[in-house]
Amino acid sequence: MSEKLVKQMDVFFNPRSIAIVGASRKVNKAGHVIFKNFVINKQRNVFKGELYPVNPHEEQILGFKCYPSINKIPGEVDLAVIVIPARHVPEVMREAAEKHVKVIVIITAGFGEIGNHALEKEIAQIAKKAGMRVLGPNCLGVYDSGTGIDMLFLPETKILATGEEVVATPRPLPGKLAIVTQSGAFGASALDYLTGRQMGVSKFVSFGNKCDVNEAEMLYYLLHDKKTKVILLYVEEISNGREFIRIAKEVTKVKPIVALKSGRTEAGARAAASHTGAIAGSDQIYNAAFARAGVIRAKNMEEFFDQGKALAMQPPAEGKNIAVVTDAGGPGIMAVDECEINGLTVKKFSDELVGKFEQLKKDGKIPKFATNLNPVDLTGSARSEMFEIAVKILFEAPEVNGIIVLGLHHTPELQGDFVDKVASVAHSYTKPIVACDIGETEMALYVRSRFEKFGIPAYGSPEDAAKAMYALVEYGDYLKKNSCFEQYVEMFLKEKE
Amino acid sequence: MSEKLVKQMDVFFNPRSIAIVGASRKVNKAGHVIFKNFVINKQRNVFKGELYPVNPHEEQILGFKCYPSINKIPGEVDLAVIVIPARHVPEVMREAAEKHVKVIVIITAGFGEIGNHALEKEIAQIAKKAGMRVLGPNCLGVYDSGTGIDMLFLPETKILATGEEVVATPRPLPGKLAIVTQSGAFGASALDYLTGRQMGVSKFVSFGNKCDVNEAEMLYYLLHDKKTKVILLYVEEISNGREFIRIAKEVTKVKPIVALKSGRTEAGARAAASHTGAIAGSDQIYNAAFARAGVIRAKNMEEFFDQGKALAMQPPAEGKNIAVVTDAGGPGIMAVDECEINGLTVKKFSDELVGKFEQLKKDGKIPKFATNLNPVDLTGSARSEMFEIAVKILFEAPEVNGIIVLGLHHTPELQGDFVDKVASVAHSYTKPIVACDIGETEMALYVRSRFEKFGIPAYGSPEDAAKAMYALVEYGDYLKKNSCFEQYVEMFLKEKE
Repeated sequence: MSEKLVKQMDVFFNPRSIAIVGASRKVNKAGHVIFKNFVINKQRNVFKGELYPVNPHEEQILGFKCYPSINKIPGEVDLAVIVIPARHVPEVMREAAEKHVKVIVIITAGFGEIGNHALEKEIAQIAKKAGMRVLGPNCLGVYDSGTGIDMLFLPETKILATGEEVVATPRPLPGKLAIVTQSGAFGASALDYLTGRQMGVSKFVSFGNKCDVNEAEMLYYLLHDKKTKVILLYVEEISNGREFIRIAKEVTKVKPIVALKSGRTEAGARAAASHTGAIAGSDQIYNAAFARAGVIRAKNMEEFFDQGKALAMQPPAEGKNIAVVTDAGGPGIMAVDECEINGLTVKKFSDELVGKFEQLKKDGKIPKFATNLNPVDLTGSARSEMFEIAVKILFEAPEVNGIIVLGLHHTPELQGDFVDKVASVAHSYTKPIVACDIGETEMALYVRSRFEKFGIPAYGSPEDAAKAMYALVEYGDYLKKNSCFEQYVEMFLKEKE
Repeated sequence: MSEKLVKQMDVFFNPRSIAIVGASRKVNKAGHVIFKNFVINKQRNVFKGELYPVNPHEEQILGFKCYPSINKIPGEVDLAVIVIPARHVPEVMREAAEKHVKVIVIITAGFGEIGNHALEKEIAQIAKKAGMRVLGPNCLGVYDSGTGIDMLFLPETKILATGEEVVATPRPLPGKLAIVTQSGAFGASALDYLTGRQMGVSKFVSFGNKCDVNEAEMLYYLLHDKKTKVILLYVEEISNGREFIRIAKEVTKVKPIVALKSGRTEAGARAAASHTGAIAGSDQIYNAAFARAGVIRAKNMEEFFDQGKALAMQPPAEGKNIAVVTDAGGPGIMAVDECEINGLTVKKFSDELVGKFEQLKKDGKIPKFATNLNPVDLTGSARSEMFEIAVKILFEAPEVNGIIVLGLHHTPELQGDFVDKVASVAHSYTKPIVACDIGETEMALYVRSRFEKFGIPAYGSPEDAAKAMYALVEYGDYLKKNSCFEQYVEMFLKEKE
């Protein structure tokens, strides 16, 4: 891997000119949706490159002069997006090669995934011979809000039977998370999920059958992408395990990777095989590979997003001993259980630390009946200042490596400003903190979104908060073992400023 | 357990007269919030009983004549809610005994949970001697939207620093789920969660320290409550295991119980002990007890609510073999994985069943490239009619015991009416079906809520859908082993009409 690769990959996200082969005037066609995405982004001056529709049957599309083939385009073409039936793809590839197109995205399906291996091999060979790099086939391509690249053929809105227009596949705001996905459908879901949860995306890549560009190369590129802080990787199989481990190892010293690898069970692997035609391989092998490469493996979809969010917002933990501070006994226990089940510890506080809380009780600063052995349970009488002072003591305690704050807003005396108070304390420390408030109505949504405004990831259940903390601990452990903990934290803090 | 017990317990939910001891004019006091709840519900004619505020320092509260003690109330008092400092509770209990009050709810904290065991014993003895039944102390009491009983001292709204009034502890709509909780804080969270997720509640009971009425008695009462279809039970410890198993066994033959038992780990048990003063006991013992009693044990908060919803909406499964039908390969694999991890099977379809799908391909009714070995992957070309016909075939197939339909709405050709089509097929069968659509923006929320409007529980991730199906399989298995499967399904269908 080299600088050359980074430059090659960068063309997918930052082309000076782009041809849409299969651009169409027919609104239901993928070639229409994709071309229109670019037209709009060009009009808004987000996409700044040249744009060429290619379609032999049209003169003009949406006001743009249309070309019968890539060859006939007057200027240079950096990137070609192909959305025409599979059987015509090789011909277009040859024309692209003549035109010295640099990179190609084949959206079209109907290759290896349905048994057409020969056709897929053919296009790979044409590309290789010409030195062109290919993403796909059978993929959603690339989305980059920064440069206006939007190859998603999934319509942003749909019309319901009631006549209402609703958001169907939203494009998320710019942010720190890169999405790299083998499944286009899951990728679209991820965009929908992240948008709704107010999480931003730096880059989105759906690589489909990966006849050429694979996940390892994309990871290497994202390592060098300044906008990406955390990489979320969805895969069903990894074809070149050794290369993947080697590259991922390099990446994870600088940026966390969270992986969701499906096909964990035999039946799941069988389903994966019939989906992509690939052999999933033993799940234990993947566990071992991810562990070696410092990749955090999420067990399910929610963990995947939750852990990505934690790593984007908080520094890693220096150790695995967690303190829980709560105003709700039951949910406190639930958080402790989930920490311990995931291999973290929630140890009884040292006498010294307990002493500090006892002093607070004597001073009337926390309730006399608060428990303080870990969890610290401020009880239903908790007020904002109590959370503030308790969290401060835990940040100062060397025995505590991470803090879970369960601020259930329902208690009568707790006001919304407890979030601001906790966040203002947290601001001065590099120890990770995650928050939870339970509920799905106004105040709960306010509390969680306000925590996140201050950079503290917030979750809707104690267990989700604990699993997010687990990711911060696991990543910290990996960084320490590879002697790059301090370096990472330093960079993390610098970028946060 | 007997008819007498049911009548006794019913007074908590359906009293003819109620005294609020500690009713107050001061808006920040629990005694004010609770009294006002009843005043409002009485004005709205939801609470139809007599209402008496008790407070020696006031003449009138909110227009109601105030009494210096329970003794001085002219009419009979069925239920007394006590919200005064712990040390005065025994005296009030003695007065209540003289007045022949039937049942008492002690909201007040400061008893066994902080080491005041003698005080708790004292009140229990007063009650026993007088034949009064007591809920609490240290609890949130009862909420019943049907009879206007609302003892929650947690304010329905709060005011943010911005001056905005927001919903803080919402009261859910009437529904099929009963909440029985040891933790008041978790109970309040549950109300908030269920309201936001549009799930209704039949009855809510927070029993706190359970100095008298325990969870087994409450379960027995709910067994006879016509509005309750599913019981959600949160506990940290169960004091009388044998009685619990005996009663729960009786209940679960007629109504499912989903339990969330925290304190699963050693550290969690330690936290529970410092919370309620109770010994949690080995987690394996609880597993065994729940299994014997047919209680479904949720592993975390989300499963708890998700499984409760599934059991309230769908009949149990007759076996554990599940079919997955999807328009998204990746999420299909994720659902299969989660099914198998939970002990369900997603077996390859029989030749006969595969043949039916092959015929559909030949007839052009589903895409040629659809896979049909289980999952059925209709691919991104899926249309509403394809889901309809695929689901119908799976409902008809004897080898399939339950269906997970993953209808990811992002694909271009799938319109919102696929939900209506699937639901209309499902209506004719007694095989359980659960749905999933991923996303947190408009169309995803529409799809999920529309599924639920038709009685098909819908989830935001494939794994959550699989775990919900697991509950339907586990409960079906239990019912079959106890020869009451058919009886339950018959009743379920009758009530659904």
